[in-house]
Amino acid sequence: MTTERTRNLLVLNGPNLNLLGTREPAVYGTGTLDDVEAAALAAAQAHGWTVDCIQSNHEGDLIDAIHGAPGLADAIIINPAAYSHTSVALRDAFSGVGLPVVEVHLSNIHKREEFRHHSYISAVAEVVICGAGIAGYRMAVDFLAESLDAKAGQ
Amino acid sequence: MTTERTRNLLVLNGPNLNLLGTREPAVYGTGTLDDVEAAALAAAQAHGWTVDCIQSNHEGDLIDAIHGAPGLADAIIINPAAYSHTSVALRDAFSGVGLPVVEVHLSNIHKREEFRHHSYISAVAEVVICGAGIAGYRMAVDFLAESLDAKAGQ
Amino acid sequence: MTTERTRNLLVLNGPNLNLLGTREPAVYGTGTLDDVEAAALAAAQAHGWTVDCIQSNHEGDLIDAIHGAPGLADAIIINPAAYSHTSVALRDAFSGVGLPVVEVHLSNIHKREEFRHHSYISAVAEVVICGAGIAGYRMAVDFLAESLDAKAGQ
Amino acid sequence: MTTERTRNLLVLNGPNLNLLGTREPAVYGTGTLDDVEAAALAAAQAHGWTVDCIQSNHEGDLIDAIHGAPGLADAIIINPAAYSHTSVALRDAFSGVGLPVVEVHLSNIHKREEFRHHSYISAVAEVVICGAGIAGYRMAVDFLAESLDAKAGQ
Amino acid sequence: MTTERTRNLLVLNGPNLNLLGTREPAVYGTGTLDDVEAAALAAAQAHGWTVDCIQSNHEGDLIDAIHGAPGLADAIIINPAAYSHTSVALRDAFSGVGLPVVEVHLSNIHKREEFRHHSYISAVAEVVICGAGIAGYRMAVDFLAESLDAKAGQ
Amino acid sequence: MTTERTRNLLVLNGPNLNLLGTREPAVYGTGTLDDVEAAALAAAQAHGWTVDCIQSNHEGDLIDAIHGAPGLADAIIINPAAYSHTSVALRDAFSGVGLPVVEVHLSNIHKREEFRHHSYISAVAEVVICGAGIAGYRMAVDFLAESLDAKAGQ
Amino acid sequence: MTTERTRNLLVLNGPNLNLLGTREPAVYGTGTLDDVEAAALAAAQAHGWTVDCIQSNHEGDLIDAIHGAPGLADAIIINPAAYSHTSVALRDAFSGVGLPVVEVHLSNIHKREEFRHHSYISAVAEVVICGAGIAGYRMAVDFLAESLDAKAGQ
Amino acid sequence: MTTERTRNLLVLNGPNLNLLGTREPAVYGTGTLDDVEAAALAAAQAHGWTVDCIQSNHEGDLIDAIHGAPGLADAIIINPAAYSHTSVALRDAFSGVGLPVVEVHLSNIHKREEFRHHSYISAVAEVVICGAGIAGYRMAVDFLAESLDAKAGQ
Amino acid sequence: MTTERTRNLLVLNGPNLNLLGTREPAVYGTGTLDDVEAAALAAAQAHGWTVDCIQSNHEGDLIDAIHGAPGLADAIIINPAAYSHTSVALRDAFSGVGLPVVEVHLSNIHKREEFRHHSYISAVAEVVICGAGIAGYRMAVDFLAESLDAKAGQ
Amino acid sequence: MTTERTRNLLVLNGPNLNLLGTREPAVYGTGTLDDVEAAALAAAQAHGWTVDCIQSNHEGDLIDAIHGAPGLADAIIINPAAYSHTSVALRDAFSGVGLPVVEVHLSNIHKREEFRHHSYISAVAEVVICGAGIAGYRMAVDFLAESLDAKAGQ
Amino acid sequence: MTTERTRNLLVLNGPNLNLLGTREPAVYGTGTLDDVEAAALAAAQAHGWTVDCIQSNHEGDLIDAIHGAPGLADAIIINPAAYSHTSVALRDAFSGVGLPVVEVHLSNIHKREEFRHHSYISAVAEVVICGAGIAGYRMAVDFLAESLDAKAGQ
Amino acid sequence: MTTERTRNLLVLNGPNLNLLGTREPAVYGTGTLDDVEAAALAAAQAHGWTVDCIQSNHEGDLIDAIHGAPGLADAIIINPAAYSHTSVALRDAFSGVGLPVVEVHLSNIHKREEFRHHSYISAVAEVVICGAGIAGYRMAVDFLAESLDAKAGQ
Repeated sequence: MTTERTRNLLVLNGPNLNLLGTREPAVYGTGTLDDVEAAALAAAQAHGWTVDCIQSNHEGDLIDAIHGAPGLADAIIINPAAYSHTSVALRDAFSGVGLPVVEVHLSNIHKREEFRHHSYISAVAEVVICGAGIAGYRMAVDFLAESLDAKAGQ
Repeated sequence: MTTERTRNLLVLNGPNLNLLGTREPAVYGTGTLDDVEAAALAAAQAHGWTVDCIQSNHEGDLIDAIHGAPGLADAIIINPAAYSHTSVALRDAFSGVGLPVVEVHLSNIHKREEFRHHSYISAVAEVVICGAGIAGYRMAVDFLAESLDAKAGQ
Repeated sequence: MTTERTRNLLVLNGPNLNLLGTREPAVYGTGTLDDVEAAALAAAQAHGWTVDCIQSNHEGDLIDAIHGAPGLADAIIINPAAYSHTSVALRDAFSGVGLPVVEVHLSNIHKREEFRHHSYISAVAEVVICGAGIAGYRMAVDFLAESLDAKAGQ
Repeated sequence: MTTERTRNLLVLNGPNLNLLGTREPAVYGTGTLDDVEAAALAAAQAHGWTVDCIQSNHEGDLIDAIHGAPGLADAIIINPAAYSHTSVALRDAFSGVGLPVVEVHLSNIHKREEFRHHSYISAVAEVVICGAGIAGYRMAVDFLAESLDAKAGQ
Repeated sequence: MTTERTRNLLVLNGPNLNLLGTREPAVYGTGTLDDVEAAALAAAQAHGWTVDCIQSNHEGDLIDAIHGAPGLADAIIINPAAYSHTSVALRDAFSGVGLPVVEVHLSNIHKREEFRHHSYISAVAEVVICGAGIAGYRMAVDFLAESLDAKAGQ
Repeated sequence: MTTERTRNLLVLNGPNLNLLGTREPAVYGTGTLDDVEAAALAAAQAHGWTVDCIQSNHEGDLIDAIHGAPGLADAIIINPAAYSHTSVALRDAFSGVGLPVVEVHLSNIHKREEFRHHSYISAVAEVVICGAGIAGYRMAVDFLAESLDAKAGQ
Repeated sequence: MTTERTRNLLVLNGPNLNLLGTREPAVYGTGTLDDVEAAALAAAQAHGWTVDCIQSNHEGDLIDAIHGAPGLADAIIINPAAYSHTSVALRDAFSGVGLPVVEVHLSNIHKREEFRHHSYISAVAEVVICGAGIAGYRMAVDFLAESLDAKAGQ
Repeated sequence: MTTERTRNLLVLNGPNLNLLGTREPAVYGTGTLDDVEAAALAAAQAHGWTVDCIQSNHEGDLIDAIHGAPGLADAIIINPAAYSHTSVALRDAFSGVGLPVVEVHLSNIHKREEFRHHSYISAVAEVVICGAGIAGYRMAVDFLAESLDAKAGQ
Repeated sequence: MTTERTRNLLVLNGPNLNLLGTREPAVYGTGTLDDVEAAALAAAQAHGWTVDCIQSNHEGDLIDAIHGAPGLADAIIINPAAYSHTSVALRDAFSGVGLPVVEVHLSNIHKREEFRHHSYISAVAEVVICGAGIAGYRMAVDFLAESLDAKAGQ
Repeated sequence: MTTERTRNLLVLNGPNLNLLGTREPAVYGTGTLDDVEAAALAAAQAHGWTVDCIQSNHEGDLIDAIHGAPGLADAIIINPAAYSHTSVALRDAFSGVGLPVVEVHLSNIHKREEFRHHSYISAVAEVVICGAGIAGYRMAVDFLAESLDAKAGQ
Repeated sequence: MTTERTRNLLVLNGPNLNLLGTREPAVYGTGTLDDVEAAALAAAQAHGWTVDCIQSNHEGDLIDAIHGAPGLADAIIINPAAYSHTSVALRDAFSGVGLPVVEVHLSNIHKREEFRHHSYISAVAEVVICGAGIAGYRMAVDFLAESLDAKAGQ
Repeated sequence: MTTERTRNLLVLNGPNLNLLGTREPAVYGTGTLDDVEAAALAAAQAHGWTVDCIQSNHEGDLIDAIHGAPGLADAIIINPAAYSHTSVALRDAFSGVGLPVVEVHLSNIHKREEFRHHSYISAVAEVVICGAGIAGYRMAVDFLAESLDAKAGQ
């Protein structure tokens, strides 16, 4: 889709993910947000990609970040956390910018409360990965890098 | 309701509407947010009104703007976009300030996904217009200007 | 869509709207059906259009009127009243004739009983306006005249 | 059930079916209502039966026609169209007259909107056929002629 | 509400009630529509009232009859039959004319199919009587005559 | 069903009906429980019947009273009040004793909260009357006396 | 779709249909599975078609049979019986092979338990016939033979 | 949980509560947000506690405030207002920080619209108080101070 | 509402609360019913009020107690326990006597089974407190004493 | 759980079961309540157990009986009859006393009305038996005697 | 129903029951499938009956086994396991063969996930037993042997 | 969990996946089942693992395969295809064997029909991946190999 040399990936983490590692390790594991972002970066670098990472507890900030992505990023990985279940606005932001999106959840949301089983984001994402912990981000990076590089004919 | 000479209108546009025109033209048309605001301004000026325009992707900013309206604006036009379907807080903000409100949607939300058929805002708006594109804003301005001027006995 | 010189508009009013003005003014206002039709006519004439007005309490008569519209009318304004909520047949009539349709409700149906929040007609209408009283018809006329004249390249 | 020599069949077509062939051919095919009625007649004549055909957009007319059937018709074929989904009155009319009924739909209603999946008529019909286009009427005629002739011991 | 000497009652019977007595006696009893109307008349005459009786299978005709009642009738008894369950338009007609209404059902609708348990009319009727057969009409006449005469201070 | 000379009627009033007249007159009218029972007695005596009246706030007492009815009463009138909506046990008690039952509600329950629209008792009652105030009891007495006397061939 | 001389039809009968005729004749009639298959064969031969018949109580066997159809059969008739209501896998098998399908039910499933009113197969079938007993298969054969022969331009 | 001498309480007020007192007094009373915070402070001081008060219309700000509480506050009182009904993110924030929480609503939400009866916050709060107006905050302070002081063995 | 010198409070405890303290302490705590009543008494005495305490497992007894309150008590505190979720009769009893009511639950019902999240009583109570254990009764006493004393102008 | 020599069983029968045998034998069989209790006694004696039997139409009495069981009974058999479907209070009583419970229904409730398919008691019972008539009680006795004796190491 | 000397019982165990004893003992106990079948055999032999046991993970195999039962077995015990909740085909197989059926579940399905509370089989079984572990099979055998022997007049 | 040198993976593909690549490429892509299995094998070999692959259209075969896995396989990857939405039996099979499971879907099921949004398998899988096409299998292999090798301390 774009032709610049170094591809870039936007990694968005939604509300409460700044607490990762220090809180509720039984649900979310002991890795921190830094660990998540470092894993994404390492995976991206292995493909010759760069990464921008943003975490916010503000729905509007996440939307703004998505709007800012075209031109700067070739794809987006998002863990929408609690906003998965309540934000039509995030969904529309993805529809608006049209970049490839992978939705990642650290925990397997299907093992949790009923209201966590539905995500407004899933229908506008290309791929959904849940339950793999931090590895889910690495899987998302690999998928996007490989599929976009393949499309670009590398 | 107020008696100052020049009436003023607050035009609020919700999340993702900053992308108008450049994104998803099949759904939302090719007009930009500038076009929307210019149309509202032109319509208002034809009635001798002024217009303040705010667009935000942040639910809280929209609430703050509504709270700031009394004293500055005589009525509000809002296109709540995705927040229509999820925001009780916006609804309560309108109940709180008690100004006349017209809800506008560019597309006909009843032709779209089931979850877009319900708006929390509609029950606190005086009028709801959907599917008329940018013209919907003009219709909203005309309605408010005429009905408020009529009430004021001009 | 048609090329004859003087464009014509069909204004349909559904069940119980013949009672307008004399009954339930708290809900529907004090304007009569004559006022509604006069307002539509005045608005149409301002665009150089003519108007045909039909009110019926019979679902079948409304369907027949819609079927008779192609060739005689360039667009339809309908206030389906109670049939909004129960008539698939009216919806199919509109799908069948394929003319542009604007759905108008005098009151804001979203402030009323739950069963009035859904209209079978909305999904086949281009525009839906509710809560604006008689002004809603004028808005509908203006929208149709302007958008059809624009398409016709005048 | 009756003993007169020439058996007769009432073929009822519900709302909007007068538009057949000229409108929405992608959904309903290119055959006209005349084609439908001619097909029913031809099929009936092959069994030595006669046919009366009625189409109406008025729920009440269809009910009146059903009420008039006993004594004149030995069975009824109905395509209730949109009234399938909304008319308890039609259902009760069939319960009231007690003639054998076959319900026919030109399109396969199960491929369409959710609200078209349920028919109030089906539970009072002997047979339901949908999706076979005009051929569905011929199938209905054949079924009724054969099963009634068989019961009459011819 | 009115002061003329002889009070009058409008008795409306909805779809399929013309079949009474000859069809489905297990559900509706063996009395005919004539029996129903004669019973209402006899009961009314005992109170010095007159009666107008209308039966129709057409929703629109019933609405027209309700619209025509003010000035001619002091109260309405309706057996809306199947339209009970599907007609918002009938409900709105009653709201529109504002006369006292008693809803009568020959059978006890709560013993029948689920979809017959809800009546749109009940919320705009003063009294609902079901399951009493023809006697239900007599009870309705007595109630209306007594309560209206009481209000008029006779 | 029974042949003893003087027929007897059991009149049951459910929870909170002992408060009648002194509380919530806007909903239930100004008549007291004594008025209700006197009205039932007067109506019964006009048919040569006697009456036993029981009011209880205890579901179990009402069930016990129903169980005690066979042999003592020929029919039952019950205003189950709040237990209408929650008591399967009362319903089963009526099924168990098999006497004719008329269910009476002072107010029109269809105008009140959604949860008051369904009564477990209605499906085991012969007749349901609601909204007629104290007159509803008189109507119930008349219906039972007349229909049982008619069955007994008087 | 195919051009070989003799067209062939696959007739699939689902679970419990091997019991036909000897069990539950009140619901399914007295014809046996042999009768069903003989009727389909006779109808097919009248069109110069051949027939393969398979009955299985195993969902997987039915799927395997559908997968084996392309190349051997030009169309499929299926009575999915109980699997209609529970098998997404059968639905997907039909989507997968893309042959024309007619769904047949011996009984009118709309007169039976609520859970039998929905069939996963209907949305991938061209035509649905229910309630016609064995004749339904003959109708299905005729429909397929005629429509496919017509497409092939014979 | 903490051992520092002076305990501190975080009092969070959600969207639109800045309008308190000046708007919709019929629902929320005439007290202002200052009154609310003063009442909380007075109650806390009576226990020797201090108070931090934050009001925001921004969901993200409330989440940030919750995240900042550990180490600074020993417990949290929140009136989540409209976010009660829509914010999974706030719920997760409370789960994340693990401090004792009391949820307060000025009005009795169970007397209002259906959608206000459910709060995502309640399941992560220790105590829920609604309908007590400003006194609810005082009750919350007393509860937290007493239970925490009791746990700390004072 | 009343003017006698010593105000009195009725404290009602519903089914199974007599088991308090000895059973299911994990859910309900270790306090006994005596502890509950003693806490209410102590709190009331601090305001110069007296207390009557009733516990019953019988819905009818609780209703009778509520009916007996006017004249004897100035307000009611009820822990309706399991009857919260099933008793319309209790709700109506409160509506009937019109005294101020506070609903108390020892546990936070929103953390328990879905069917415990709805209470029929809440909509007729002034205040609802849940999850505070025995302290909830003290909070209820304080609220009622203070608000009633305030109204009485002390 | 207890070690006294002779174990005892509490057999509870809910509302309307006193009518057994004389009423609705098609549903409940011809055995009487005496037969039920005799069967339970015989089965218990075969294991060297004694039995206490209580039947009541009063929910509160059944709760009181359950509360009285610990110390007197080692296990409870209950046929909650209609209270199965409506009584959370009975459920909580069982949770409160913690004795082993077997729930018995004479008829197979899954063949009856939809509202009888759910029992609040089942989730707190160890075993549920329905449809076995009086034999179901014997099965329940055998199960409890054997499992408790086994636990006690006899 | 049959007259041969030695009665025979078919014991069917559905999917995953071959894993019994070695897997998930907390839910299903430590008994193996061999234990289950041995218990059924022992119970049957005590009545002079024989037993055939089949376990399969294949829905079709279970249906085939049911079809093969008439003539070989006098009754069927089935633990349909997971197919309880999803198999209409198994239900229809039982309806088809018409033998007496007892449905057994080792665990109390009403204590588990919501989707396990409904069994399609229950409505075609005579008796349903759940939660009794292996003893449930013995209870089922006893019930069937006794009731069939009783019917046969032994 | 096991200590043998070469770890093995079971790759299960459910109904209709044998059609991959040749059918519905718009939904499922052009890769064949061989491609899927080859991709899984390649990924496994990169970790020094072996792979067993099974595809079946038979629910029972898939269950049997899962039962056979313990001892032979260290983990399972399953694409349950249509059985995701309907098979409790497959879910229970996974619960029964207790091996780590990854659920893979080629397409993003959240973009498809509503009934495909729920999978019974997801709650017993560790990880769920959908929408990644064949790459999803590779991601699953990598996840399992890495997480199991990590647990084994390699």
